[in-house]
Amino acid sequence: MNARIQKLVEKLEEPLIVTGEANIRYLTGFVSSNASLAVEPGRVRLFTDFRYASAARAVEDVEFVETRRHVIPSMAELLSGTFAFESEHLTYAGYEELRDGGLELVPRKGIVEEMRAVKDEEEIEKIRRAAEITNRAYERFAAEERLVGRSEKELAWRMTSLLHELGAEDVSFETIVAGGANGARPHADPTDRPIEPNTTVVVDAGGVLDGYCSDCTRTFATGELPDELARAYEICLQAQLRGLEAARAGVEAKQTDAAARTLISDAGLGEKFGHGLGHGVGIDVHEAPSVAATSEDTLVANNVCTIEPGIYLEGIGGIRIEDLVVITNGEPEVLSSFPKELVTVN
Amino acid sequence: MNARIQKLVEKLEEPLIVTGEANIRYLTGFVSSNASLAVEPGRVRLFTDFRYASAARAVEDVEFVETRRHVIPSMAELLSGTFAFESEHLTYAGYEELRDGGLELVPRKGIVEEMRAVKDEEEIEKIRRAAEITNRAYERFAAEERLVGRSEKELAWRMTSLLHELGAEDVSFETIVAGGANGARPHADPTDRPIEPNTTVVVDAGGVLDGYCSDCTRTFATGELPDELARAYEICLQAQLRGLEAARAGVEAKQTDAAARTLISDAGLGEKFGHGLGHGVGIDVHEAPSVAATSEDTLVANNVCTIEPGIYLEGIGGIRIEDLVVITNGEPEVLSSFPKELVTVN
Repeated sequence: MNARIQKLVEKLEEPLIVTGEANIRYLTGFVSSNASLAVEPGRVRLFTDFRYASAARAVEDVEFVETRRHVIPSMAELLSGTFAFESEHLTYAGYEELRDGGLELVPRKGIVEEMRAVKDEEEIEKIRRAAEITNRAYERFAAEERLVGRSEKELAWRMTSLLHELGAEDVSFETIVAGGANGARPHADPTDRPIEPNTTVVVDAGGVLDGYCSDCTRTFATGELPDELARAYEICLQAQLRGLEAARAGVEAKQTDAAARTLISDAGLGEKFGHGLGHGVGIDVHEAPSVAATSEDTLVANNVCTIEPGIYLEGIGGIRIEDLVVITNGEPEVLSSFPKELVTVN
Repeated sequence: MNARIQKLVEKLEEPLIVTGEANIRYLTGFVSSNASLAVEPGRVRLFTDFRYASAARAVEDVEFVETRRHVIPSMAELLSGTFAFESEHLTYAGYEELRDGGLELVPRKGIVEEMRAVKDEEEIEKIRRAAEITNRAYERFAAEERLVGRSEKELAWRMTSLLHELGAEDVSFETIVAGGANGARPHADPTDRPIEPNTTVVVDAGGVLDGYCSDCTRTFATGELPDELARAYEICLQAQLRGLEAARAGVEAKQTDAAARTLISDAGLGEKFGHGLGHGVGIDVHEAPSVAATSEDTLVANNVCTIEPGIYLEGIGGIRIEDLVVITNGEPEVLSSFPKELVTVN
């Protein structure tokens, strides 16, 4: 039983069925979209199908059990008694299959996620390296001769390719490049529309290294900006810096969010910032802690999270500035090194 | 109310909460990882958060309801009475939130998936075009000067890049390139190991176009193969052709699977083919119908599915040959045009 599973066992009130893919990876190193783990004191079983068998056999400290393609019904046949399960990572249909197999079930939330929110040194080092790849990708992106006239899709693929060329094993999420009015959508899909001059271009991207994500957003200008966007950029940047100041161990995450949000609200743009200030990053690009007005988390040292205020002016353009940081007892360690002052690429 | 939703309403015994991402896309065209649909006779509401608001407002024939970041609890506040829900696409935690909001809930499975399994002409045309991009990517991949000595990861990225260059908006799944012993894992992850001479290289890839996936596998040789692999290739190819012959409307999918499987079993390699013969392909790269020994589906015209037997010799190498086909009343329309006779690339 490895140290992480040992620590998990100590937290459990009853044996736990782990079905969250990232949770299984965190606990065992095993990567599969079709696996499940049964963690009991002194016994850990890894269930997966034929396709992943040889990889599963190589996992140390667990018993591998080969199942049919549908893992959960096979598990239900083999397990008995009382088990907790991850209610945010098991479908209702999966719950029915376990229940109909005769198990006594206790829904639980966030047990492994809570462990994952506080990174160890090895994890932080992986994230630093993923962030460094991302930093260099932004430098090369900014060195492109032209953005204007090229489509958002073409530029998004360029950024994705840069991340790969620099050593990322994957992207943390589909790269977002959103110019002009499309940038006013916080989760814009890149379109075939060409980038126009004198507007903002939101670029949100991150590379994955050794299974750990990075995440960074910068907003570029394509020439001189209309006053409204230029002003919004300045306000967003000040809010981002204010958020960083308020991101340290011991602070309630909703206070960190409030520090940045108040500045934007005081400028009369509060309604243009409709999402939370940030989120944890690790094996998943969105994980604990939540840095939002609704968060009940308190930041602790070795949380890794984003600080990313945005201002979205519908029909005009968007701005988002996002750093990835490691929370410490003092100032956060900022892993995103690309400049935050407005960079113009025509 | 569009034609698909109209047809869905006619099938329903009670109003339905749709939470499957591909199902929402199929019914409305709306793409989001954080949305939900409530379908009642005469009324369709689309729930999503701020980030997707402007895209959601543009969806015709539905009422858009902006929610907090957590969509399900917001829905629970607004809905009342009895609703069916998609038990394979709602977590147990989501079920609890709806239940605690006072809804009477009925778990249902596969209602929209059953509709999606039979494609209309427009959908088939999109898949044809996605498959055509994939065909051309295989041609270019086969024209690479060398495979030997290059890493699986490098070659997988090359294939992914080819799909993008040829117009794919995304890949259907992370491209698999697996040589030698790694090819004996049906779901191999590409590694940093270089491809060796005189072995097989399994390449499994597909491009997405207009939201529809394609899927194709070819197995290349890097020089003359050891007898065991050469023989397995021939058997796999014959099994694949046998599978195609047995893939037509009116046939039980398990009989299609059996047609190919019997040939492999008769050759003494039945235990080396541990997965089903195929799966439906559409908005998801794995969807209905299932073409497997355990399937209860009967093939019908305009199903789109894969026919992909594999033979996996642990420690030695793997072979898989996969075509994407449209089921008809006669011979299937095979969308994968790259040759299936053994192609050697050194």
